[in-house]
Amino acid sequence: MTTKAFTLISPQNPVFITYLFWSAILVLKLFAMVILTGNQRWRKMTFISPEDLFSKKSKVKYDDDDIERVRRAHRNDLENILPFLTIGFFYCLTDPEPWLAINLFRLVGISRIIHTFVYAVIVIPQPARFLSFILALLPTLYMTLQVIKFCF
Amino acid sequence: MTTKAFTLISPQNPVFITYLFWSAILVLKLFAMVILTGNQRWRKMTFISPEDLFSKKSKVKYDDDDIERVRRAHRNDLENILPFLTIGFFYCLTDPEPWLAINLFRLVGISRIIHTFVYAVIVIPQPARFLSFILALLPTLYMTLQVIKFCF
Amino acid sequence: MTTKAFTLISPQNPVFITYLFWSAILVLKLFAMVILTGNQRWRKMTFISPEDLFSKKSKVKYDDDDIERVRRAHRNDLENILPFLTIGFFYCLTDPEPWLAINLFRLVGISRIIHTFVYAVIVIPQPARFLSFILALLPTLYMTLQVIKFCF
Repeated sequence: MTTKAFTLISPQNPVFITYLFWSAILVLKLFAMVILTGNQRWRKMTFISPEDLFSKKSKVKYDDDDIERVRRAHRNDLENILPFLTIGFFYCLTDPEPWLAINLFRLVGISRIIHTFVYAVIVIPQPARFLSFILALLPTLYMTLQVIKFCF
Repeated sequence: MTTKAFTLISPQNPVFITYLFWSAILVLKLFAMVILTGNQRWRKMTFISPEDLFSKKSKVKYDDDDIERVRRAHRNDLENILPFLTIGFFYCLTDPEPWLAINLFRLVGISRIIHTFVYAVIVIPQPARFLSFILALLPTLYMTLQVIKFCF
Repeated sequence: MTTKAFTLISPQNPVFITYLFWSAILVLKLFAMVILTGNQRWRKMTFISPEDLFSKKSKVKYDDDDIERVRRAHRNDLENILPFLTIGFFYCLTDPEPWLAINLFRLVGISRIIHTFVYAVIVIPQPARFLSFILALLPTLYMTLQVIKFCF
Protein backbone atom coordinates (compact mmCIF):
# COMPACT_ATOMS: atom_id res chain seq x y z
CA MET A 1 0.00 0.00 0.00
CA THR A 2 2.75 2.42 0.96
CA THR A 3 4.72 1.40 -2.09
CA LYS A 4 1.61 1.94 -4.19
CA ALA A 5 1.15 5.47 -2.86
CA PHE A 6 4.68 6.24 -3.98
CA THR A 7 4.36 4.84 -7.46
CA LEU A 8 1.48 7.28 -8.02
CA ILE A 9 3.90 10.27 -8.15
CA SER A 10 5.78 8.88 -11.10
CA PRO A 11 6.32 9.44 -14.83
CA GLN A 12 5.01 5.87 -15.28
CA ASN A 13 1.55 6.88 -13.97
CA PRO A 14 -0.47 8.30 -16.91
CA VAL A 15 -2.86 10.03 -14.47
CA PHE A 16 0.03 11.89 -12.84
CA ILE A 17 1.61 12.83 -16.17
CA THR A 18 -1.73 14.19 -17.43
CA TYR A 19 -2.08 16.20 -14.22
CA LEU A 20 1.48 17.50 -14.64
CA PHE A 21 0.88 18.47 -18.26
CA TRP A 22 -2.39 20.37 -17.74
CA SER A 23 -1.13 22.03 -14.56
CA ALA A 24 1.92 23.36 -16.41
CA ILE A 25 -0.31 24.51 -19.30
CA LEU A 26 -2.56 26.34 -16.83
CA VAL A 27 0.45 28.03 -15.21
CA LEU A 28 1.53 29.17 -18.70
CA LYS A 29 -2.02 30.45 -19.24
CA LEU A 30 -1.86 32.26 -15.87
CA PHE A 31 1.37 33.98 -16.92
CA ALA A 32 -0.22 34.87 -20.27
CA MET A 33 -2.33 37.33 -18.24
CA VAL A 34 0.87 39.35 -17.72
CA ILE A 35 1.09 39.82 -21.50
CA LEU A 36 -2.65 40.58 -21.87
CA THR A 37 -2.42 43.17 -19.07
CA GLY A 38 0.77 44.68 -20.49
CA ASN A 39 -0.82 44.97 -23.96
CA GLN A 40 -3.79 46.89 -22.59
CA ARG A 41 -1.60 49.12 -20.40
CA TRP A 42 0.59 50.15 -23.35
CA ARG A 43 -2.36 50.59 -25.69
CA LYS A 44 -4.09 52.84 -23.14
CA MET A 45 -0.84 54.31 -21.75
CA THR A 46 -2.34 53.57 -18.33
CA PHE A 47 -0.10 52.21 -15.58
CA ILE A 48 -0.40 50.96 -12.05
CA SER A 49 2.19 53.03 -10.14
CA PRO A 50 3.51 56.58 -10.47
CA GLU A 51 7.11 55.37 -11.00
CA ASP A 52 5.92 53.59 -14.18
CA LEU A 53 5.17 56.86 -15.99
CA PHE A 54 7.78 57.62 -18.62
CA SER A 55 6.16 60.40 -20.66
CA LYS A 56 3.49 63.05 -20.33
CA LYS A 57 1.06 60.86 -22.25
CA SER A 58 1.23 58.00 -19.75
CA LYS A 59 -0.98 58.11 -16.65
CA VAL A 60 -1.98 56.17 -13.52
CA LYS A 61 -5.62 55.10 -13.50
CA TYR A 62 -7.49 52.26 -11.80
CA ASP A 63 -10.80 52.24 -13.65
CA ASP A 64 -9.96 51.64 -17.29
CA ASP A 65 -12.58 49.15 -18.51
CA ASP A 66 -10.28 47.03 -20.69
CA ILE A 67 -7.46 46.84 -18.16
CA GLU A 68 -9.77 46.04 -15.25
CA ARG A 69 -11.41 43.31 -17.34
CA VAL A 70 -8.04 41.57 -17.81
CA ARG A 71 -7.29 42.02 -14.10
CA ARG A 72 -10.64 40.46 -13.16
CA ALA A 73 -9.88 37.48 -15.40
CA HIS A 74 -6.45 37.22 -13.77
CA ARG A 75 -7.92 37.27 -10.27
CA ASN A 76 -10.48 34.65 -11.27
CA ASP A 77 -7.55 32.48 -12.39
CA LEU A 78 -5.89 32.86 -8.99
CA GLU A 79 -9.16 31.85 -7.31
CA ASN A 80 -9.60 28.76 -9.46
CA ILE A 81 -6.37 27.56 -11.08
CA LEU A 82 -4.21 27.79 -7.94
CA PRO A 83 -6.48 25.58 -5.76
CA PHE A 84 -6.73 23.15 -8.70
CA LEU A 85 -2.94 22.76 -8.78
CA THR A 86 -3.02 21.42 -5.21
CA ILE A 87 -6.26 19.43 -5.43
CA GLY A 88 -5.24 17.76 -8.70
CA PHE A 89 -2.06 16.53 -6.99
CA PHE A 90 -4.03 15.18 -4.01
CA TYR A 91 -6.50 13.54 -6.37
CA CYS A 92 -3.64 11.65 -8.09
CA LEU A 93 -2.69 10.25 -4.65
CA THR A 94 -6.18 8.73 -4.28
CA ASP A 95 -5.35 6.42 -7.23
CA PRO A 96 -8.46 7.35 -9.28
CA GLU A 97 -9.81 5.45 -12.27
CA PRO A 98 -7.43 6.64 -15.07
CA TRP A 99 -10.01 7.28 -17.81
CA LEU A 100 -12.10 9.52 -15.54
CA ALA A 101 -9.14 11.33 -13.98
CA ILE A 102 -7.44 12.03 -17.31
CA ASN A 103 -10.61 13.46 -18.82
CA LEU A 104 -11.36 15.59 -15.75
CA PHE A 105 -7.88 17.13 -15.99
CA ARG A 106 -8.46 17.86 -19.68
CA LEU A 107 -11.86 19.38 -18.92
CA VAL A 108 -10.42 21.72 -16.27
CA GLY A 109 -7.53 22.72 -18.52
CA ILE A 110 -9.60 23.42 -21.63
CA SER A 111 -12.40 25.17 -19.70
CA ARG A 112 -9.99 27.59 -18.01
CA ILE A 113 -8.35 28.45 -21.36
CA ILE A 114 -11.80 29.17 -22.85
CA HIS A 115 -12.68 31.20 -19.74
CA THR A 116 -9.76 33.56 -20.33
CA PHE A 117 -10.55 33.79 -24.03
CA VAL A 118 -14.23 34.76 -23.65
CA TYR A 119 -13.50 37.04 -20.66
CA ALA A 120 -10.39 38.94 -21.67
CA VAL A 121 -9.47 38.30 -25.30
CA ILE A 122 -12.72 38.50 -27.28
CA VAL A 123 -15.71 39.23 -25.06
CA ILE A 124 -18.39 36.67 -25.85
CA PRO A 125 -21.91 37.11 -24.38
CA GLN A 126 -23.00 35.01 -21.42
CA PRO A 127 -23.41 32.13 -20.70
CA ALA A 128 -19.99 31.54 -22.37
CA ARG A 129 -18.00 32.74 -19.37
CA PHE A 130 -20.34 31.13 -16.85
CA LEU A 131 -20.17 27.74 -18.59
CA SER A 132 -16.37 27.74 -18.92
CA PHE A 133 -16.15 28.77 -15.26
CA ILE A 134 -18.49 26.03 -14.01
CA LEU A 135 -16.99 23.29 -16.22
CA ALA A 136 -13.66 23.86 -14.50
CA LEU A 137 -15.12 24.34 -11.02
CA LEU A 138 -17.33 21.22 -10.92
CA PRO A 139 -14.53 18.73 -11.74
CA THR A 140 -12.27 20.46 -9.19
CA LEU A 141 -15.04 20.20 -6.56
CA TYR A 142 -15.52 16.50 -7.43
CA MET A 143 -11.77 15.91 -6.95
CA THR A 144 -11.87 17.76 -3.61
CA LEU A 145 -14.73 15.55 -2.38
CA GLN A 146 -12.88 12.41 -3.52
CA VAL A 147 -9.82 13.54 -1.53
CA ILE A 148 -11.95 14.07 1.60
CA LYS A 149 -13.54 10.62 1.12
CA PHE A 150 -10.06 9.10 0.73
CA CYS A 151 -9.08 10.40 4.21
CA PHE A 152 -11.56 8.09 5.96
CA MET B 1 16.48 8.09 5.18
CA THR B 2 15.42 8.36 1.55
CA THR B 3 12.95 5.57 2.11
CA LYS B 4 11.69 7.39 5.16
CA ALA B 5 11.14 10.60 3.22
CA PHE B 6 8.97 8.63 0.80
CA THR B 7 6.87 6.93 3.43
CA LEU B 8 5.89 10.39 4.70
CA ILE B 9 3.71 11.00 1.59
CA SER B 10 1.49 8.04 2.31
CA PRO B 11 -2.02 7.16 3.46
CA GLN B 12 -0.29 5.27 6.31
CA ASN B 13 1.12 8.51 7.75
CA PRO B 14 -1.56 10.08 10.03
CA VAL B 15 0.17 13.46 9.79
CA PHE B 16 -0.09 13.43 6.00
CA ILE B 17 -3.71 12.25 6.03
CA THR B 18 -4.64 15.03 8.47
CA TYR B 19 -2.89 17.54 6.22
CA LEU B 20 -4.74 16.12 3.20
CA PHE B 21 -8.10 16.29 4.97
CA TRP B 22 -7.83 19.88 6.24
CA SER B 23 -6.32 21.11 2.97
CA ALA B 24 -9.26 19.68 1.03
CA ILE B 25 -11.72 21.17 3.56
CA LEU B 26 -10.03 24.57 3.14
CA VAL B 27 -10.25 24.33 -0.66
CA LEU B 28 -13.99 23.56 -0.26
CA LYS B 29 -14.23 26.61 2.00
CA LEU B 30 -12.37 28.70 -0.60
CA PHE B 31 -14.87 27.63 -3.27
CA ALA B 32 -17.73 28.42 -0.87
CA MET B 33 -16.77 32.07 -1.45
CA VAL B 34 -18.12 31.67 -5.00
CA ILE B 35 -21.56 30.89 -3.52
CA LEU B 36 -21.34 33.72 -0.95
CA THR B 37 -20.37 36.18 -3.70
CA GLY B 38 -23.07 34.90 -6.05
CA ASN B 39 -25.72 35.21 -3.32
CA GLN B 40 -24.84 38.85 -2.71
CA ARG B 41 -24.65 39.66 -6.44
CA TRP B 42 -28.15 38.25 -7.08
CA ARG B 43 -29.61 39.84 -3.96
CA LYS B 44 -28.22 43.24 -4.98
CA MET B 45 -28.56 42.61 -8.74
CA THR B 46 -24.98 43.91 -8.97
CA PHE B 47 -22.57 42.20 -11.34
CA ILE B 48 -18.91 42.39 -12.27
CA SER B 49 -18.96 42.75 -16.08
CA PRO B 50 -21.35 44.43 -18.55
CA GLU B 51 -22.04 41.12 -20.36
CA ASP B 52 -23.50 39.75 -17.09
CA LEU B 53 -26.47 42.15 -17.18
CA PHE B 54 -29.66 40.37 -18.17
CA SER B 55 -32.38 42.88 -17.26
CA LYS B 56 -32.80 46.60 -16.70
CA LYS B 57 -32.72 46.04 -12.94
CA SER B 58 -29.24 44.50 -12.97
CA LYS B 59 -26.20 46.77 -12.90
CA VAL B 60 -22.39 46.82 -12.81
CA LYS B 61 -20.97 48.35 -9.64
CA TYR B 62 -17.67 47.91 -7.77
CA ASP B 63 -18.42 49.51 -4.42
CA ASP B 64 -21.36 47.59 -2.97
CA ASP B 65 -20.48 47.12 0.72
CA ASP B 66 -21.77 43.56 1.07
CA ILE B 67 -20.25 42.28 -2.15
CA GLU B 68 -16.89 43.92 -1.52
CA ARG B 69 -16.86 42.43 1.99
CA VAL B 70 -17.18 38.90 0.56
CA ARG B 71 -14.51 39.70 -2.02
CA ARG B 72 -12.13 40.94 0.70
CA ALA B 73 -12.69 37.71 2.64
CA HIS B 74 -12.01 35.76 -0.57
CA ARG B 75 -8.78 37.63 -1.24
CA ASN B 76 -7.69 37.09 2.36
CA ASP B 77 -8.23 33.36 1.77
CA LEU B 78 -5.99 33.46 -1.30
CA GLU B 79 -3.31 35.23 0.74
CA ASN B 80 -3.44 32.70 3.58
CA ILE B 81 -4.96 29.36 2.55
CA LEU B 82 -2.98 28.98 -0.68
CA PRO B 83 0.48 29.36 0.94
CA PHE B 84 -0.66 27.00 3.71
CA LEU B 85 -1.45 24.28 1.13
CA THR B 86 2.21 24.27 0.06
CA ILE B 87 3.79 24.82 3.48
CA GLY B 88 1.66 22.11 5.11
CA PHE B 89 2.95 19.64 2.51
CA PHE B 90 6.57 20.66 3.11
CA TYR B 91 6.02 20.43 6.87
CA CYS B 92 4.85 16.81 6.48
CA LEU B 93 8.19 16.08 4.75
CA THR B 94 10.09 17.26 7.85
CA ASP B 95 8.59 14.29 9.76
CA PRO B 96 7.16 16.41 12.61
CA GLU B 97 5.95 15.10 15.97
CA PRO B 98 2.47 13.73 15.03
CA TRP B 99 0.48 15.12 17.97
CA LEU B 100 1.74 18.66 17.35
CA ALA B 101 1.42 18.53 13.57
CA ILE B 102 -2.10 17.09 13.63
CA ASN B 103 -3.33 19.76 16.04
CA LEU B 104 -1.65 22.57 14.10
CA PHE B 105 -3.46 21.45 10.93
CA ARG B 106 -6.76 21.38 12.83
CA LEU B 107 -6.07 24.85 14.25
CA VAL B 108 -5.37 26.32 10.81
CA GLY B 109 -8.46 24.64 9.31
CA ILE B 110 -10.89 25.66 12.04
CA SER B 111 -9.49 29.20 12.34
CA ARG B 112 -9.88 29.87 8.61
CA ILE B 113 -13.48 28.61 8.66
CA ILE B 114 -14.26 30.93 11.59
CA HIS B 115 -12.46 33.77 9.76
CA THR B 116 -14.85 33.49 6.81
CA PHE B 117 -17.85 33.20 9.09
CA VAL B 118 -17.13 36.34 11.15
CA TYR B 119 -15.96 38.32 8.09
CA ALA B 120 -18.48 37.46 5.41
CA VAL B 121 -21.43 35.48 6.82
CA ILE B 122 -22.39 37.19 10.10
CA VAL B 123 -20.19 40.18 10.86
CA ILE B 124 -18.94 39.80 14.44
CA PRO B 125 -17.09 42.73 16.09
CA GLN B 126 -13.33 42.67 16.42
CA PRO B 127 -11.17 41.00 17.68
CA ALA B 128 -13.09 37.98 16.26
CA ARG B 129 -11.66 38.36 12.76
CA PHE B 130 -8.20 39.32 14.00
CA LEU B 131 -8.01 36.28 16.32
CA SER B 132 -9.19 33.80 13.68
CA PHE B 133 -6.70 35.36 11.24
CA ILE B 134 -3.74 35.17 13.61
CA LEU B 135 -4.58 31.65 14.87
CA ALA B 136 -4.21 30.40 11.31
CA LEU B 137 -1.21 32.57 10.46
CA LEU B 138 0.97 31.72 13.48
CA PRO B 139 0.87 27.91 12.99
CA THR B 140 1.58 28.41 9.26
CA LEU B 141 4.55 30.64 10.13
CA TYR B 142 5.80 28.04 12.62
CA MET B 143 5.61 25.34 9.92
CA THR B 144 7.48 27.62 7.49
CA LEU B 145 10.29 28.14 10.01
CA GLN B 146 10.48 24.37 10.68
CA VAL B 147 10.85 23.79 6.93
CA ILE B 148 13.68 26.33 6.70
CA LYS B 149 15.39 24.70 9.71
CA PHE B 150 15.00 21.28 8.05
CA CYS B 151 17.01 22.51 5.03
CA PHE B 152 20.22 22.85 7.05
CA MET C 1 12.90 4.87 -13.23
CA THR C 2 10.00 4.78 -10.79
CA THR C 3 12.45 4.48 -7.95
CA LYS C 4 14.36 7.42 -9.37
CA ALA C 5 11.24 9.59 -9.50
CA PHE C 6 10.75 8.91 -5.81
CA THR C 7 14.30 9.67 -4.75
CA LEU C 8 13.86 13.14 -6.24
CA ILE C 9 11.49 14.17 -3.39
CA SER C 10 14.08 13.60 -0.74
CA PRO C 11 16.34 15.47 1.69
CA GLN C 12 19.25 13.74 -0.12
CA ASN C 13 18.48 15.59 -3.35
CA PRO C 14 20.23 19.01 -3.23
CA VAL C 15 17.90 20.33 -5.96
CA PHE C 16 14.84 19.48 -3.89
CA ILE C 17 16.31 20.92 -0.68
CA THR C 18 17.17 24.17 -2.49
CA TYR C 19 13.62 24.32 -3.85
CA LEU C 20 12.27 23.68 -0.34
CA PHE C 21 14.45 26.38 1.19
CA TRP C 22 13.65 29.16 -1.31
CA SER C 23 9.96 28.26 -1.39
CA ALA C 24 9.76 28.56 2.40
CA ILE C 25 11.69 31.86 2.27
CA LEU C 26 9.25 33.18 -0.34
CA VAL C 27 6.26 32.14 1.80
CA LEU C 28 7.85 34.06 4.71
CA LYS C 29 8.27 37.02 2.34
CA LEU C 30 4.61 36.70 1.30
CA PHE C 31 3.52 36.81 4.94
CA ALA C 32 5.80 39.83 5.49
CA MET C 33 3.26 41.73 3.37
CA VAL C 34 0.84 41.35 6.29
CA ILE C 35 3.28 43.35 8.46
CA LEU C 36 3.94 45.94 5.74
CA THR C 37 0.19 46.42 5.21
CA GLY C 38 -0.48 46.58 8.96
CA ASN C 39 2.26 49.19 9.42
CA GLN C 40 0.75 51.45 6.76
CA ARG C 41 -2.80 50.95 8.09
CA TRP C 42 -1.80 51.98 11.63
CA ARG C 43 0.35 54.87 10.44
CA LYS C 44 -2.54 56.21 8.33
CA MET C 45 -5.28 54.97 10.72
CA THR C 46 -6.96 53.61 7.60
CA PHE C 47 -8.66 50.22 7.78
CA ILE C 48 -10.40 47.80 5.46
CA SER C 49 -13.74 47.13 7.20
CA PRO C 50 -16.06 49.22 9.38
CA GLU C 51 -15.75 46.78 12.32
CA ASP C 52 -11.99 47.55 12.45
CA LEU C 53 -12.56 51.16 13.54
CA PHE C 54 -11.72 51.62 17.22
CA SER C 55 -11.58 55.40 17.59
CA LYS C 56 -12.89 58.51 15.89
CA LYS C 57 -9.50 59.04 14.26
CA SER C 58 -9.58 55.71 12.43
CA LYS C 59 -11.38 55.44 9.10
CA VAL C 60 -12.25 53.09 6.22
CA LYS C 61 -10.71 54.12 2.91
CA TYR C 62 -9.71 52.22 -0.23
CA ASP C 63 -7.55 54.71 -2.07
CA ASP C 64 -4.69 55.56 0.26
CA ASP C 65 -1.58 55.60 -1.98
CA ASP C 66 0.80 53.92 0.45
CA ILE C 67 -1.61 51.20 1.52
CA GLU C 68 -2.70 50.41 -2.04
CA ARG C 69 0.96 50.21 -3.10
CA VAL C 70 1.61 47.48 -0.51
CA ARG C 71 -1.58 45.71 -1.58
CA ARG C 72 -0.50 45.79 -5.24
CA ALA C 73 2.87 44.30 -4.28
CA HIS C 74 1.01 41.62 -2.28
CA ARG C 75 -1.25 40.77 -5.21
CA ASN C 76 1.76 40.61 -7.52
CA ASP C 77 3.26 38.08 -5.09
CA LEU C 78 0.13 35.94 -5.29
CA GLU C 79 0.30 36.06 -9.09
CA ASN C 80 3.96 35.03 -9.21
CA ILE C 81 5.14 33.30 -6.03
CA LEU C 82 2.17 30.93 -5.71
CA PRO C 83 2.50 29.43 -9.24
CA PHE C 84 6.27 29.15 -8.64
CA LEU C 85 5.68 27.01 -5.53
CA THR C 86 3.91 24.41 -7.71
CA ILE C 87 6.10 24.69 -10.80
CA GLY C 88 9.33 24.48 -8.77
CA PHE C 89 8.09 21.19 -7.29
CA PHE C 90 7.21 19.81 -10.74
CA TYR C 91 10.59 20.94 -12.07
CA CYS C 92 12.37 18.94 -9.33
CA LEU C 93 10.49 15.85 -10.59
CA THR C 94 12.01 16.32 -14.07
CA ASP C 95 15.46 15.60 -12.54
CA PRO C 96 17.11 18.78 -13.86
CA GLU C 97 20.84 19.46 -14.02
CA PRO C 98 21.58 20.42 -10.35
CA TRP C 99 23.80 23.45 -10.98
CA LEU C 100 21.22 25.08 -13.25
CA ALA C 101 18.21 24.21 -11.08
CA ILE C 102 19.81 25.40 -7.86
CA ASN C 103 20.78 28.74 -9.39
CA LEU C 104 17.36 29.24 -10.97
CA PHE C 105 15.71 28.74 -7.57
CA ARG C 106 18.11 31.27 -6.04
CA LEU C 107 17.40 33.74 -8.85
CA VAL C 108 13.63 33.48 -8.36
CA GLY C 109 13.95 33.82 -4.58
CA ILE C 110 16.30 36.81 -4.59
CA SER C 111 14.44 38.59 -7.42
CA ARG C 112 11.09 38.36 -5.62
CA ILE C 113 12.62 39.72 -2.40
CA ILE C 114 14.09 42.67 -4.35
CA HIS C 115 10.71 43.14 -6.10
CA THR C 116 8.95 43.68 -2.75
CA PHE C 117 11.72 45.97 -1.54
CA VAL C 118 11.70 48.32 -4.55
CA TYR C 119 7.89 48.23 -4.82
CA ALA C 120 6.68 48.52 -1.26
CA VAL C 121 9.54 49.30 1.15
CA ILE C 122 11.64 51.99 -0.54
CA VAL C 123 10.26 53.00 -3.93
CA ILE C 124 13.11 52.85 -6.43
CA PRO C 125 12.60 54.23 -9.97
CA GLN C 126 11.98 51.87 -12.87
CA PRO C 127 13.36 49.64 -14.31
CA ALA C 128 14.15 48.29 -10.80
CA ARG C 129 10.73 46.75 -10.31
CA PHE C 130 10.45 45.58 -13.89
CA LEU C 131 13.84 43.83 -13.78
CA SER C 132 13.18 42.09 -10.45
CA PHE C 133 9.77 41.02 -11.81
CA ILE C 134 11.14 39.62 -15.06
CA LEU C 135 14.16 37.91 -13.44
CA ALA C 136 11.73 35.84 -11.37
CA LEU C 137 9.21 35.30 -14.17
CA LEU C 138 11.64 34.10 -16.86
CA PRO C 139 13.17 31.25 -14.77
CA THR C 140 9.66 30.20 -13.70
CA LEU C 141 8.54 30.16 -17.35
CA TYR C 142 11.63 28.13 -18.28
CA MET C 143 10.77 25.58 -15.55
CA THR C 144 7.17 25.42 -16.80
CA LEU C 145 8.33 24.68 -20.35
CA GLN C 146 10.73 21.99 -19.07
CA VAL C 147 7.81 20.35 -17.21
CA ILE C 148 5.68 20.36 -20.38
CA LYS C 149 8.59 18.86 -22.36
CA PHE C 150 9.02 16.17 -19.67
CA CYS C 151 5.40 15.03 -20.22
CA PHE C 152 6.17 13.77 -23.76
